Amino acid sequence: MVDYFDVLKAYKRIRDVVNETPVMTSRTLDKLTNAEVYLKCENFQRIGAFKMRGAYNTISKLNDEQKANGVIAHSSGNHAQAVALSAKLLGIKATIVMPITSPKVKVEATRDTYGAEVVMCENTIDARHKKTEELIKKYGYTLIHPYDNDDIIAGAGTAAYELLNKVGNLDMVFAPVGGGGLLSGTLLAVKGDNPEIEVYAVEPKNVDDAYRSLISGKIEKNITINSIADGLLTNLSERTFKIIQENVDKIITVSEEEIVNAMQFLWERMKLVVEPSGACSLAGVLSKQIPVENKKIGVIISGGNIDLKDFFNLIRKKIK
Amino acid sequence: MVDYFDVLKAYKRIRDVVNETPVMTSRTLDKLTNAEVYLKCENFQRIGAFKMRGAYNTISKLNDEQKANGVIAHSSGNHAQAVALSAKLLGIKATIVMPITSPKVKVEATRDTYGAEVVMCENTIDARHKKTEELIKKYGYTLIHPYDNDDIIAGAGTAAYELLNKVGNLDMVFAPVGGGGLLSGTLLAVKGDNPEIEVYAVEPKNVDDAYRSLISGKIEKNITINSIADGLLTNLSERTFKIIQENVDKIITVSEEEIVNAMQFLWERMKLVVEPSGACSLAGVLSKQIPVENKKIGVIISGGNIDLKDFFNLIRKKIK
Repeated sequence: MVDYFDVLKAYKRIRDVVNETPVMTSRTLDKLTNAEVYLKCENFQRIGAFKMRGAYNTISKLNDEQKANGVIAHSSGNHAQAVALSAKLLGIKATIVMPITSPKVKVEATRDTYGAEVVMCENTIDARHKKTEELIKKYGYTLIHPYDNDDIIAGAGTAAYELLNKVGNLDMVFAPVGGGGLLSGTLLAVKGDNPEIEVYAVEPKNVDDAYRSLISGKIEKNITINSIADGLLTNLSERTFKIIQENVDKIITVSEEEIVNAMQFLWERMKLVVEPSGACSLAGVLSKQIPVENKKIGVIISGGNIDLKDFFNLIRKKIK
Repeated sequence: MVDYFDVLKAYKRIRDVVNETPVMTSRTLDKLTNAEVYLKCENFQRIGAFKMRGAYNTISKLNDEQKANGVIAHSSGNHAQAVALSAKLLGIKATIVMPITSPKVKVEATRDTYGAEVVMCENTIDARHKKTEELIKKYGYTLIHPYDNDDIIAGAGTAAYELLNKVGNLDMVFAPVGGGGLLSGTLLAVKGDNPEIEVYAVEPKNVDDAYRSLISGKIEKNITINSIADGLLTNLSERTFKIIQENVDKIITVSEEEIVNAMQFLWERMKLVVEPSGACSLAGVLSKQIPVENKKIGVIISGGNIDLKDFFNLIRKKIK
């Protein structure tokens, strides 16, 4: 079972490769919340999201045979790029299974910038799994799961670990929850440092499986995946559910509008490009469901990868 | 005449009030340029731009009578907010003359967030000057010019001063040029620290008055103000022209497309919200007009204030 010491070990393993991301503050935000708010900005992480931490930790721990055979992941998001770049840095072959509907720019980034082999499949969960299984059988690849993996969780926890090292005496930490990897790692890092620090998870109301799972005591699934926070659509695994159930102080949910409002605040007032999933934790703080007055609060901003093609095309039209 | 020591004095005067803005780096950018590039991110400055430095320096130096009478500025941009906030922090009345065409959001920010009195006028340079003169005569306000002012220049120079303190041994510094306040201050700070550090100014091709002024030896004016870099449309003053003429290594110009490309790089790859004027200096580096290979380069990113209303309205439509 993964614990606080695995986070420490992961930190030593990855610290020379990942970015120690900045912690940002804002007088306006502090005034708005009547609190001291510290944003741990994983949008400034390599590949633009915290996923790099877990992927590098996991892949660097593989044994020689696994390394020789290569790794595989199925994702069209940040995990794909994290696995591809980590493998590249470690000189390991990576294969990424992506749905044929993936944006061209993501396929190209994964293949050309990060050097992975991209294999396309139909855009269903079944097709992805089938294709991945088929390739693992054929080539002996090791699957790098995006969150159902102790090393991924320990790696993800290093963001909160760095935050606590930088900003002492936090009263609370807010983190988003999707599959639960980042939240699990954050819980281990924070509660291992000081069990009295409260950890709140924030989830989009539209995909509130983790919230409902905590109430029912068993893993609930999302019926729709109708949220702008495209990094948080997945369900928990037994592994992450257990850690969350034992450690989290509360899971709160936020509306789509609250997520966009938080995102707009981050962009306009703090000049930070943050993706919707990355703005969720701040949306949770701003929702005032948890009394934060006069508290010292850490907020995990998970990533900043968002498609800006349309926005810049619009600007380009103006200068023509 | 303003000099290096005025920058040092300005720094001591403002350092507890302005943000020491972060210096950001990017492996991708370093690879792209074959250089070590350090971005001094004044988009993270209070009010979102370097203007805060000069405004606070200038207003805090006023004598008691001037302070009692209050200050005035005419601007619809970053200077307006910098004067308004600086005056507010110093307990001084500020009046800002703005054209009736100013975006409502800017008027409200200046008035409501920063507590200045906003006086509207017709949208011509003549009308602005006339209204400002009229109010000065009537109330004895002190005019805070956006760049034709030694204290504004010294304050602006503190950004480069901080950069040099943080990152030693720079070979070059790139800064944008509009009215020349930021460039003048940067030149004093950099050449005062070490005259061997080269300073390059970057100007939009469409408003290349400074570039032409340096060639002709007299202040040239812009015929059109057709550039997306709306902070760089103004002409030099005698004061800034003299400092630039004596100190700058070269002025280079960049196209509108180069500005937008640099901006897109900053947003997409570095997750930094930067306004077009703020991306100009990086556009200059990326234009490869100056050989930067294996050099250590400082780049002044001047600000990040850009209207994102349309962008977020579009996002809001998607979640409805």
